[in-house]
Amino acid sequence: MTHRAIDLNERFDQFSETWSPKVITTLNDYEIKLVRLDGEFVWHAHQDTDELFLVLSGKLTIQLREGEVRLSAGQLFVVPRGVEHCPITEGGEVRAMLIEPAGVINTGDAGGELTASYDDSLS
Amino acid sequence: MTHRAIDLNERFDQFSETWSPKVITTLNDYEIKLVRLDGEFVWHAHQDTDELFLVLSGKLTIQLREGEVRLSAGQLFVVPRGVEHCPITEGGEVRAMLIEPAGVINTGDAGGELTASYDDSLS
Repeated sequence: MTHRAIDLNERFDQFSETWSPKVITTLNDYEIKLVRLDGEFVWHAHQDTDELFLVLSGKLTIQLREGEVRLSAGQLFVVPRGVEHCPITEGGEVRAMLIEPAGVINTGDAGGELTASYDDSLS
Repeated sequence: MTHRAIDLNERFDQFSETWSPKVITTLNDYEIKLVRLDGEFVWHAHQDTDELFLVLSGKLTIQLREGEVRLSAGQLFVVPRGVEHCPITEGGEVRAMLIEPAGVINTGDAGGELTASYDDSLS
């Protein structure tokens, strides 16, 4: 097996869709995903897991029922399990890294048209 | 509970020691750690877990018995469980984020004087 670094910007250059997380590698039974975000997502929660957002570029607000968390490049936030949240971008596209257990659905318990298919084509 | 973003650079400003990972937050039963690296570490392996390195600044080489992985800012590598590795920096200090299950010891199965105490004072 050849071991190689994963360059986040190179991986982002390989897709353009928003709200469609791409698995780039795994860490035990967790997945490391990249996602482009633009606009407002849907309110949802993940009942069984926390979810880590690390912003790589742009400005992201994670709306919570009890407030909001504003993130820019180099900042991260872990949404606790069961906590309803709704990401929204300010002023254009955001690039973010997500980390969560394998199999988590982006829209959590909400479903709907923004539910993304599993995509590990960049891993 | 107040939810706030974690700024990685702000957290780095709060310590200066090298080879001493600081837990900044948790993700389920995983820990997100920041570490400053400078020079060469010790050869070791983690028999029970993969280990993620994301380089935030500087140049890091992860030496493996079968080659090496060179990382610069914005690049990550997951050392597979059981694989012997030895980080070494090139040209000065490296800032990195580590992600691994709670309780992992930095020197793995090697032990020795570089074994760091558990430190979650920045979380």
